[in-house]
Amino acid sequence: MTDLDKVLARIDADLDNSLDRLFRFLAIKSISTDPAYADECRAAAFSLAADLSTLDIAAEVHPTDGHPVVFAKATFPGRGRRKRVVFYGHYDVQPVDPLDLWQTPPFEPRIATLADGRKAIVARGAADDKGQIMTFIDACRAWKAVTGSVPVDITFVIEGEEECGSKHLPGWVEAHKAELAADIALVCDTGMWDAATPAITTALRGLVYEEVKIKGADRDLHSGIFGGAAQNPIRVLAGIVAAIHDDDGRIAIPGFYDGVQELPEDVKKTWAALGMTAEKFLGPVGLSAPAGEKGRLVIEQTSSRPTCDVNGIWGGYTGEGSKTVIPAEASAKISFRLVGKQEPAKIREAFRAFVRARLPADCKAEFTGHSGAPAIALDWNLPQLAQARAALTQEWGREALLIGSGGSIPVVGDFKRLVGIDTLLVGFGLDDDRIHSPNEKYDLTSFHKGTRSWARILAALAE
Amino acid sequence: MTDLDKVLARIDADLDNSLDRLFRFLAIKSISTDPAYADECRAAAFSLAADLSTLDIAAEVHPTDGHPVVFAKATFPGRGRRKRVVFYGHYDVQPVDPLDLWQTPPFEPRIATLADGRKAIVARGAADDKGQIMTFIDACRAWKAVTGSVPVDITFVIEGEEECGSKHLPGWVEAHKAELAADIALVCDTGMWDAATPAITTALRGLVYEEVKIKGADRDLHSGIFGGAAQNPIRVLAGIVAAIHDDDGRIAIPGFYDGVQELPEDVKKTWAALGMTAEKFLGPVGLSAPAGEKGRLVIEQTSSRPTCDVNGIWGGYTGEGSKTVIPAEASAKISFRLVGKQEPAKIREAFRAFVRARLPADCKAEFTGHSGAPAIALDWNLPQLAQARAALTQEWGREALLIGSGGSIPVVGDFKRLVGIDTLLVGFGLDDDRIHSPNEKYDLTSFHKGTRSWARILAALAE
Repeated sequence: MTDLDKVLARIDADLDNSLDRLFRFLAIKSISTDPAYADECRAAAFSLAADLSTLDIAAEVHPTDGHPVVFAKATFPGRGRRKRVVFYGHYDVQPVDPLDLWQTPPFEPRIATLADGRKAIVARGAADDKGQIMTFIDACRAWKAVTGSVPVDITFVIEGEEECGSKHLPGWVEAHKAELAADIALVCDTGMWDAATPAITTALRGLVYEEVKIKGADRDLHSGIFGGAAQNPIRVLAGIVAAIHDDDGRIAIPGFYDGVQELPEDVKKTWAALGMTAEKFLGPVGLSAPAGEKGRLVIEQTSSRPTCDVNGIWGGYTGEGSKTVIPAEASAKISFRLVGKQEPAKIREAFRAFVRARLPADCKAEFTGHSGAPAIALDWNLPQLAQARAALTQEWGREALLIGSGGSIPVVGDFKRLVGIDTLLVGFGLDDDRIHSPNEKYDLTSFHKGTRSWARILAALAE
Repeated sequence: MTDLDKVLARIDADLDNSLDRLFRFLAIKSISTDPAYADECRAAAFSLAADLSTLDIAAEVHPTDGHPVVFAKATFPGRGRRKRVVFYGHYDVQPVDPLDLWQTPPFEPRIATLADGRKAIVARGAADDKGQIMTFIDACRAWKAVTGSVPVDITFVIEGEEECGSKHLPGWVEAHKAELAADIALVCDTGMWDAATPAITTALRGLVYEEVKIKGADRDLHSGIFGGAAQNPIRVLAGIVAAIHDDDGRIAIPGFYDGVQELPEDVKKTWAALGMTAEKFLGPVGLSAPAGEKGRLVIEQTSSRPTCDVNGIWGGYTGEGSKTVIPAEASAKISFRLVGKQEPAKIREAFRAFVRARLPADCKAEFTGHSGAPAIALDWNLPQLAQARAALTQEWGREALLIGSGGSIPVVGDFKRLVGIDTLLVGFGLDDDRIHSPNEKYDLTSFHKGTRSWARILAALAE
């Protein structure tokens, strides 16, 4: 029996204890976005530090101007030049409203049996990200228990502000970049392809978020008196929004596609073979027809292609009944998902120019820039990628897929830019985990085999 | 000295008393839309009835499910077949907020001197509509005082719900239509062309008000995960709104212009000669360029042409900061001003068909119909129109203009439909009266010469 076999057996035998530890962690109401829960966020950080201390890891809880960062630089017994990884996760969770839609209280974790017989851990944070953090820590715990060491040295960075924009993390990373030197970073905050197929996320879309206000007259006007003569900012805004996409679903902003590369043919073929139809992807949310760029796979539309969405729009009278007003202004929140080498600053400027070019006489536009981050794409030839992929394939009995994600995880960019290290995104979440929604869950299989997966990956990365 | 000359002299001599009566009326806080002021509305109604009794007119205060209607059917001494007019006004006023923008308390009327030396009565309701009502009543008072009679018999209908939608008036008119028989109705709730030029409003635009909700997915979606594949209802709604007007400012809904007639060439020439430029009309509200149908006068755009305005739009995240959501739905309030023989029901259906034709797969539209009323256009050959016009021209020394108004006064339609009588809209308001706004005023000249104007019109209509 190899060490790895013993470690895996230990994980299986210790599952109930693992769940106990996770449930205690899940009971802490570490909602980061609501200042009323600041103490609970601190409690979650100290609870993690205490947990790491049971592995003889000396963790520090670093205060920030927001919630603290749990930091630990663990060196385990071993010979020769050992590899080091940075592990990133977040102990904070989303708010729980609407509370009345939860079948059981969000911070009283339980094991539920789903309609199809799957067992799942139900609680706020079960999948995002407390359960995923614990898969990694318990893999380390098993290695430590069986061999007295862990195959690689590990620097832990577990923050408490991921759900409210990671405002203080880039500064913290910048201040600690020397201590963060490593061979690679690992992030456990993503998902599998499906419940049976593991995946590594090798591409993350970037984000540019803009708010635009169109201003017309210097006051609200009566549409009976001024209608037909006065410019209506809602009409102007609607015209601009409508012009962003052309009839083929492409974005019509000049220069928008600069830096966007076509998928390699073989990747496209692999993706096409996955059978992810529009019906399969959109059916669960009540939709059926892909609304993006024509002639693209749904997986392309949502991961390898840049997009634009209006996230909010408002102007004029929005109460009950009718009011015949021509409003003085109208606003929209508009965001772009970026891929490849699209530059956030250029996209932002191109959008603003696009808006300005469509302003009629008498209208002005005011812009507020929200977040901006470039896309992340991992080099497919990275040796650690092959190592982690092989480990996952062994655990799950199915080839691990390399996928792109439509979302953004800004810390990946921070690690690359400030520390110079790449990040492997490995996670065991599933599409039906309801993260950010009531009744969030994490499959028991995700937790158990996730822990086993990390045990294998830790061994593989040591090679 | 003719009777009319004596009546006019009496009005001049009695001006201070007229103002005293008006000030007492203005002090009553008859805000109809706020239930807290129901007693004040009743007080205003009884105050009017008491005022009419000083003219030996037996007024009745008719309760409704809302605020009461002041009704009086006055017959004055005289020989032969006497003409009868219905006089309509409203004793209710708009709310006064924002109160801190009033220079003096809204229900403590005073005479102010404007920057250009004009004197004005400042109070809520001064122009809309208490001051205008009193021009008519005091013209009757002067006739009664000088001759013991009034040239025509008068049926008074003064309601208390005009500022909150006249909800109970159509039912009241229907129930009293036999008693409302008359040669013509007079409404004093409109304005002059400018401070020196009187006007009769011969056309009122109609109104169709719609609310539309575009629905997409069955829940809000994360734009990182679904962006590029899921249909965004805001984008769909913006596309529909943007398609309503073509590049020339015309409304692109099929059949929309059915029943719209071109202005007679001579009217167009008269209007063009008025010199109402876009700068003059739009300048005071911070605009300069007409945004309506190309190649039309601003007066046409705002009175003789039909229009469409989006009065409100909302959907998605509208709070502080950013949220990457693709909302499940987006809504807009959209209204149409109608002219000529445009049919409200047809316009409503044409709009709904226009929306449905633009719905992509996966989107549904839900409609809520708000108000609908056809346009009103007075027959320019009506003898009373010529009589009133001549009387106004004599009083002001300038030809009285026949103008269209962009707004709607539903009672005019009720009188026509239910009683079969036409309405002359004569009023002495000015564009700078700030009705519905803080520091509402009514020029002293409007009040004084308005009273004199009615004295002349009453004589003219008796012929």
